[in-house]
Amino acid sequence: LDKPARDAAIARHEVMTKPAGSLGVLEDVSIQLAGLAGVFPPPIPEPAAVAVFAADHGVHAQGVTPWPQEVTAQMVLNFLAGGAVVNAFAHQIGAEVCVVDVGVNAELPQQTGLVPRKIRYGTADLAEGPAMTREEALTAIEVGVETARDLVAAGNKVLLTGDMGIANTTASAALIAAFTGASPTQVTGYGTGIDEQTYAHKVDVVRRALDLHRPDPGDPLGVLAAVGGLEHAALAGFILGAASLRVPVILDGVIAGAAALVAQALAPEATDAMVAGHRSAESGHQLALEALGVVPLIDLELRLGEGSGAVLALPLVQAAVRALRDVATFESAGVAGRADDDDENAA
Amino acid sequence: LDKPARDAAIARHEVMTKPAGSLGVLEDVSIQLAGLAGVFPPPIPEPAAVAVFAADHGVHAQGVTPWPQEVTAQMVLNFLAGGAVVNAFAHQIGAEVCVVDVGVNAELPQQTGLVPRKIRYGTADLAEGPAMTREEALTAIEVGVETARDLVAAGNKVLLTGDMGIANTTASAALIAAFTGASPTQVTGYGTGIDEQTYAHKVDVVRRALDLHRPDPGDPLGVLAAVGGLEHAALAGFILGAASLRVPVILDGVIAGAAALVAQALAPEATDAMVAGHRSAESGHQLALEALGVVPLIDLELRLGEGSGAVLALPLVQAAVRALRDVATFESAGVAGRADDDDENAA
Repeated sequence: LDKPARDAAIARHEVMTKPAGSLGVLEDVSIQLAGLAGVFPPPIPEPAAVAVFAADHGVHAQGVTPWPQEVTAQMVLNFLAGGAVVNAFAHQIGAEVCVVDVGVNAELPQQTGLVPRKIRYGTADLAEGPAMTREEALTAIEVGVETARDLVAAGNKVLLTGDMGIANTTASAALIAAFTGASPTQVTGYGTGIDEQTYAHKVDVVRRALDLHRPDPGDPLGVLAAVGGLEHAALAGFILGAASLRVPVILDGVIAGAAALVAQALAPEATDAMVAGHRSAESGHQLALEALGVVPLIDLELRLGEGSGAVLALPLVQAAVRALRDVATFESAGVAGRADDDDENAA
Repeated sequence: LDKPARDAAIARHEVMTKPAGSLGVLEDVSIQLAGLAGVFPPPIPEPAAVAVFAADHGVHAQGVTPWPQEVTAQMVLNFLAGGAVVNAFAHQIGAEVCVVDVGVNAELPQQTGLVPRKIRYGTADLAEGPAMTREEALTAIEVGVETARDLVAAGNKVLLTGDMGIANTTASAALIAAFTGASPTQVTGYGTGIDEQTYAHKVDVVRRALDLHRPDPGDPLGVLAAVGGLEHAALAGFILGAASLRVPVILDGVIAGAAALVAQALAPEATDAMVAGHRSAESGHQLALEALGVVPLIDLELRLGEGSGAVLALPLVQAAVRALRDVATFESAGVAGRADDDDENAA
């Protein structure tokens, strides 16, 4: 983070017509975005684009979810038709949605809004062997980097992560366990809503995967190839791409959190570009947020994915920067300061 | 809340292309707004208007805050010039701001955007006697009701509470203590930021006021007259006015929470129209939210007031309703349901 721009933002918060610190976490966000942009005031983060990375998961065969694998492809078509929650939220709040196929297990039609970057027809079953090769993981990362680059080149000033992939909370749990050292029980959640029996089985699948691969957090690409998903890899690249362009990236829920751990392991400074959109109901997400060292802006028991939580956080991020740019100072507005402050602000 | 419209919203959430319950608290909000509107789907809550009720407080003389009383009037001018945080947020997010003078201790110029409804030049000192007469409290409530009516007549589909009044967290603390039975220590917060000595003094002022007036929560108008503020009274009326028109009202922080307790005591069914915008850092606010039985949408350690927290919650409320209106169903989108669901949704 650029120190002069950051310091200018900190100083501005002291003289704006409000009690110092009264915008809480949003002050931190605005200061971060100034430091990231390297200029004061930083640009308002708009227009915004959500990239929904879609892929399938071989671990679906283990019966970790009641949803058929076909739902991944069906939801991609739903995104393209504008019928999903992320579309409704993005329409209301003001963000473009694009879908990137990095590994859906189906032939998808060529269509506006769909970026065809299929690397393989879903991962292999991470409970039985590596989910993908290191080369495939790297290729997926590159897809994410290129997506970020393209969206920024198109004029977007903030990127939002989205994801779709039936069974991807299982891969997320394994990734979070690998990077945080937490137990399978701690990292595994109820995903889209499963019963206790399926939950116990899901925990066991995560445990078996970790026992099988013994993932080494010092080798992030290896972890990704062993237990990750193609959308996790692409999301990691998307975050790295945004960070390298000094563009903020708003993270959605647990899938993004797992991918962000990969990005952070590959390039710790990428954390500077991350804004945590929300804390999901999925138990591993809180662990991921703590390990990343980021504070979620929204906490409403959302557990949908798709980028929905990131989109909801977008206006908060934009408002935080808007305040930095537009709010008058005590001096400019002729507002008296606190009686216990230095003379310069006193009436 | 209208049961058929509410039930229709509940049923819709079961067939939308998302796991049931996955939008967490936002599902509850959308269901509430359907019940409030009495129609399914409910209208998108836009356009939106924030009414900032401004007034001064005689208790300022007790030294409960380091800010000069003149700041109330100066901030009103700042609102009118568009220079305050609430203006910046409302500009970014899309809401109109109007300011209602219900009791600022200064002559204010006639100006577009300022509604002149001054009842008196600030309240009397609630630590020494009643803050105002019952008639004044009632008149201020009527100002709030009329403000709601005018803003809804102008086409607004959602109202947001705002407030400005140096020392108004002291009156809020006394109101919250009166309605919840909590102790002066529990309800009193650090307001705009005070030191420990001032805090101890502020708690003592609240305690003296409660001892002096022995406010009876069964007589809400009496409580308001004894320890409230003119903006609290107007806000209570604003909430009642919105509720009577079946228009949702998004509450800002602790001032609005205290006023909402008055509104709830006067008309419990008004609670149906309330959406809690955020939970402020002010300690009494959580107690007020619990007593009201409302769940805050944003929790970012904000402690500014002005309506800033309500404005930030607006896009969440709008997005919740937008989802109800726009998201495809499993059937319409051709998306398979869960394998463990009823046959109708299965692939």
